[in-house]
Amino acid sequence: MAATKPSTLHEDRLFSSNPLERKIAKELYDIAKTLPLVCPHGHVDPKLFAENAPFPDPTELLVIPDHYLFRMLYSQGIPLESLGVPRIDGGQTEQDHRKIWQIVGENFYLFRGTPTGVWLSHELYEVLGIRTRLTGETAMAIYDEILEALAKPENLPRAMFDRFNIEVLSTTDSPIDSLEHHIKIRESDWTGKIVPAFRPDNVTDFMATGWRQNIDKLAKVSGVDCSTYKGYIQALENRRAFFKKMGATSTDQGVFTPFTAEMEEREAAGLYEKALKGEATAEDARMFTGHIIMEMARMSIEDGLTMQIHPGVYRNHNPEIFKKFGADKGCDIPMATDYVNNLKPLLNKYGNDPRLTLIVFTIDEDTYSRELAPLAGHYPAMKLGPAWWFHDSREGMLQYRHATTETAGIYNTVGFNDDTRAFPSIPARHDVARRVDSRFLAELVAEHIIDMDEAKEMIVDLSYNLVKKNYKL
Amino acid sequence: MAATKPSTLHEDRLFSSNPLERKIAKELYDIAKTLPLVCPHGHVDPKLFAENAPFPDPTELLVIPDHYLFRMLYSQGIPLESLGVPRIDGGQTEQDHRKIWQIVGENFYLFRGTPTGVWLSHELYEVLGIRTRLTGETAMAIYDEILEALAKPENLPRAMFDRFNIEVLSTTDSPIDSLEHHIKIRESDWTGKIVPAFRPDNVTDFMATGWRQNIDKLAKVSGVDCSTYKGYIQALENRRAFFKKMGATSTDQGVFTPFTAEMEEREAAGLYEKALKGEATAEDARMFTGHIIMEMARMSIEDGLTMQIHPGVYRNHNPEIFKKFGADKGCDIPMATDYVNNLKPLLNKYGNDPRLTLIVFTIDEDTYSRELAPLAGHYPAMKLGPAWWFHDSREGMLQYRHATTETAGIYNTVGFNDDTRAFPSIPARHDVARRVDSRFLAELVAEHIIDMDEAKEMIVDLSYNLVKKNYKL
Amino acid sequence: MAATKPSTLHEDRLFSSNPLERKIAKELYDIAKTLPLVCPHGHVDPKLFAENAPFPDPTELLVIPDHYLFRMLYSQGIPLESLGVPRIDGGQTEQDHRKIWQIVGENFYLFRGTPTGVWLSHELYEVLGIRTRLTGETAMAIYDEILEALAKPENLPRAMFDRFNIEVLSTTDSPIDSLEHHIKIRESDWTGKIVPAFRPDNVTDFMATGWRQNIDKLAKVSGVDCSTYKGYIQALENRRAFFKKMGATSTDQGVFTPFTAEMEEREAAGLYEKALKGEATAEDARMFTGHIIMEMARMSIEDGLTMQIHPGVYRNHNPEIFKKFGADKGCDIPMATDYVNNLKPLLNKYGNDPRLTLIVFTIDEDTYSRELAPLAGHYPAMKLGPAWWFHDSREGMLQYRHATTETAGIYNTVGFNDDTRAFPSIPARHDVARRVDSRFLAELVAEHIIDMDEAKEMIVDLSYNLVKKNYKL
Repeated sequence: MAATKPSTLHEDRLFSSNPLERKIAKELYDIAKTLPLVCPHGHVDPKLFAENAPFPDPTELLVIPDHYLFRMLYSQGIPLESLGVPRIDGGQTEQDHRKIWQIVGENFYLFRGTPTGVWLSHELYEVLGIRTRLTGETAMAIYDEILEALAKPENLPRAMFDRFNIEVLSTTDSPIDSLEHHIKIRESDWTGKIVPAFRPDNVTDFMATGWRQNIDKLAKVSGVDCSTYKGYIQALENRRAFFKKMGATSTDQGVFTPFTAEMEEREAAGLYEKALKGEATAEDARMFTGHIIMEMARMSIEDGLTMQIHPGVYRNHNPEIFKKFGADKGCDIPMATDYVNNLKPLLNKYGNDPRLTLIVFTIDEDTYSRELAPLAGHYPAMKLGPAWWFHDSREGMLQYRHATTETAGIYNTVGFNDDTRAFPSIPARHDVARRVDSRFLAELVAEHIIDMDEAKEMIVDLSYNLVKKNYKL
Repeated sequence: MAATKPSTLHEDRLFSSNPLERKIAKELYDIAKTLPLVCPHGHVDPKLFAENAPFPDPTELLVIPDHYLFRMLYSQGIPLESLGVPRIDGGQTEQDHRKIWQIVGENFYLFRGTPTGVWLSHELYEVLGIRTRLTGETAMAIYDEILEALAKPENLPRAMFDRFNIEVLSTTDSPIDSLEHHIKIRESDWTGKIVPAFRPDNVTDFMATGWRQNIDKLAKVSGVDCSTYKGYIQALENRRAFFKKMGATSTDQGVFTPFTAEMEEREAAGLYEKALKGEATAEDARMFTGHIIMEMARMSIEDGLTMQIHPGVYRNHNPEIFKKFGADKGCDIPMATDYVNNLKPLLNKYGNDPRLTLIVFTIDEDTYSRELAPLAGHYPAMKLGPAWWFHDSREGMLQYRHATTETAGIYNTVGFNDDTRAFPSIPARHDVARRVDSRFLAELVAEHIIDMDEAKEMIVDLSYNLVKKNYKL
Repeated sequence: MAATKPSTLHEDRLFSSNPLERKIAKELYDIAKTLPLVCPHGHVDPKLFAENAPFPDPTELLVIPDHYLFRMLYSQGIPLESLGVPRIDGGQTEQDHRKIWQIVGENFYLFRGTPTGVWLSHELYEVLGIRTRLTGETAMAIYDEILEALAKPENLPRAMFDRFNIEVLSTTDSPIDSLEHHIKIRESDWTGKIVPAFRPDNVTDFMATGWRQNIDKLAKVSGVDCSTYKGYIQALENRRAFFKKMGATSTDQGVFTPFTAEMEEREAAGLYEKALKGEATAEDARMFTGHIIMEMARMSIEDGLTMQIHPGVYRNHNPEIFKKFGADKGCDIPMATDYVNNLKPLLNKYGNDPRLTLIVFTIDEDTYSRELAPLAGHYPAMKLGPAWWFHDSREGMLQYRHATTETAGIYNTVGFNDDTRAFPSIPARHDVARRVDSRFLAELVAEHIIDMDEAKEMIVDLSYNLVKKNYKL
């Protein structure tokens, strides 16, 4: 590798190199790129905007919180300890952030052809103004450049939010969260719109770490006695109302499978009480989750919050890493998923009700054309979440559009969301989505399946209108 | 949307926009487009040609019978009642066909990028001579234009059949059908060739609505006593012989899974008698269907009828719609399917016999390269049905050719079939297939995998020869 | 078909016909094509090089040993007997090799668009110097030309090996094999590098034909008493050491599923003793194989042999063919496979150890993006084997790169292997891989995802470096 290569961010990147398609894609992207970013689903910490403190350094900003990044380095034999990923068991990890950044530089070639490579290149170039390619040779110089950039007022969190042209950003929050940072933001003089989303997994899944204590906290924040199932449901409804008051327009549930099944209230109450006593089994938890999804749909019809579910991930597949570093450390593995049978009870009961917006995500691409597009292309309540996680990428999004459009159309999809913890990656992620959608539409125009005037409407729908409509933002 | 846009049907539609591939595709398509249409599998009502009455109006012709169309409208919250879909429970539905057509016009943008959009545009332009794009603004004017067109003699069913250049069209018929319309067509002076196909599901599946009464009807039409299993089998053979006399060259079975398993005759007889008494369980039905598939293969070897099976669809997934509107209303959902284990008994017993032609369809694209192409690329009896239903489309056909050709070649596939209830969509559907096949071959030529003289043979095989050979037409 | 057409082998074959991508692909391929062939996994008979006798005739060389070829002919109703495939039941088969070659010529059109067509065209043109297309008309003339070519010294096995520019070729060998041919090659004055690979299936799978006798042979060749489990394990270790001494750098296991599960030694010993007595069940065999995979990983960590597993094939799906002709006769069918749960015990115990290189193959393309790329993109020990068997092809390799690169990168893959019994097809197979990889990278360059200097490094990594590194060659 030569020592210092200019980094590039080509204006035609991610478009087909077929000249006709590229020309059309550019014309469509020129429309898309000016639209504000709508971010209805993500994991950015609201504290960032409540406090508006400068980001400390490149490693803290770009490496330590990014499991996409360090999972690849780990797969090549680089220990997580040496990347500064904090240990929950008290073990030592590298504290020298320059040393960590140097490792990233030396191994950045591993990300060739990956979305992490695309995003990080975009962030370095566009957000932080770096003009040399990140390698082992350039790592330290770039570290210094970034440090300098982060000290500038334009790179404070709120300033970034404004210059990213974000119209609204939703965080993801537990029912037991006081939403103190959201409150602080609303009370500040800053006009950036940050809203919470209601994610109840840690109080609905009996197997969640600390479930029992979380129920006590739920009782406390809601002021509702949770010692009975009736009270528990009321507490959830109460918190949804509070979240809604704080701007929330949606809920979110991460579940192992999309299993849904309604119980008699008596039966659900029995399981809940068993769990309170610490006696619930994994099967009890599965049944209860299947029931709670039904309850959440009922509540959504009542309070209007858009409902999201994310099934199909084997979380913490690697117990050694989980024990040392905890959850969300790059060892979550997708699984085959059945939606046809699992969602049937939910869709049969609530799927015909147009008051419900149920957004279903998948990480199992096989189900796009076989199950999800046919279901979304029939049930009025059901919509398809965008290409998710490992498929939040050029290949993933193209595959998604190719596999779902013919059966569900684009109007049963809900636009893009960035689903990220990494705030500075937001423009990069939306940019990829807008480019890939432009490219997909360009192919349809070039092959005379749709006309250009239709494509121009569709790119605005995909980039802006559909997300606002489906998330009621 | 601008009020009145010209509609277009570009001569290069569906070809790759890569100039070299497009040029080759056009040359191949120019060969394909002149060939007669062979339609070995479909659901057009033979009464249409027996009576040769004019089509009443656009809504009756294009909307009410087309579940592809109204499922998408339904998914966006438009009630089926408002689209005039007849209720089987006696409930009211919209009777004003202009009002229904207006809804279709206003929502036609939903079909951008879908096969329904492609087909309907083709029908409006090519079959009915409409030159403006269908929108809310143009809907009523187009309604009037179509009404006028339908009154012309060239748009009577038999005249359409002739101008569509259809060489032969197969309907799909129950063993208890008298084939009266087929008889009437044969007795008329019209030379159009319409043949039946033998689809016994309603007398072979114990769970089929009215199975018990259907057995009585089977006894009656065949003149064979069906109170024993032996008689029942004989009645099926008898009806196959009658169908064959009436021109049939194939049978068809729609099954939940491709499960096959031969029983001892005694055992099969036991299940049959149990079913006659109304005591059969779902599991009995499954076992009996698995056995009857084996029997149908045996009969096909004896009488030479090509055998087709279509598994893998969860029919009537939405009970609310099923109760109100009945079957085939857009709520059938594909499922994951296993062919390797399920077809083993059938293929082991009859798959090595070149007298049998067994055409297997799937709606689970995952099985193309993993299971179906390897099976068809080995067993002499087995052939692959074309991309089916949700995959009867640009993406679906391309995916099918890409996934099956390397392992099964094109010569273990059987050409195209339109599988449609919508008679005027037949030219559009064959046109898509011929264009996509031309495009696929053009890619192989452009990448120097095959030579142009080979591609020219192959496009004729795909468009005409393979279907005639495998359906013995 | 015209009587005599020139055969072609276009210099741009397999590249995209998009001019920009083709230009880049050519530039990358020009680098790749000069690199030596590294063949870490295949089934060429070492006797070929020990004896270095001339190949007898075209049919013996190209037809009889190639199940890819005769499976397609069989699928079109041509009996294997008429193709000279030897019967194990003593039945007659065609002995006239000219007659067999004539059948191949007449039916060569079946291979249009298939990898067998691509490989055979390459072999005829490039290895054997044939310049007319193989058809029924040209078959006999080509037969004579090939006969003549095979008599030349440049077409002796060792001379072919040298002119193919093979750096090293690994065979696949049973632990009970004496490796006599390898010994003879090493003792000869020829410098070609041929190494064995340790494939223990016939002594680890209780259900393998002759397992009991194989254990006796294992005891004999190893000199270790195998009447106990301890002895058996020691004998395996002993043979691994011998294979390593003879140049082996890897092991290989073909398994029905990737099921892994460690047993207590006592429990494994119990199963082993049960099997010795001939009392093991299929379930015992499954459990024992799941345990032996764990043991093989342990041994690999100790002796450094790279470990390979190949699951997911239903072997000998057609018992009629199996009884007449034996195994490997084109009736092996891929199945759906689960890696997430099955590999968990193995990966949890050994997957974090960078001393282990575990190469996992699949024939179930669905698992590329859903399971295998995420697993290989996390566990340091795990790497992805190349697109295998039915997917050792243009479509297969492209699909593999598109589905795995974003999540696993190219650096968790291990380059190409030809996995072939057909020695003269080796250059053709590597050529396809290098062309498809060049094409894939060209797409990334043309779409500005990577730069050309990166692509130039990557093509060398994919064609040469990764395979040497991961197989320690």
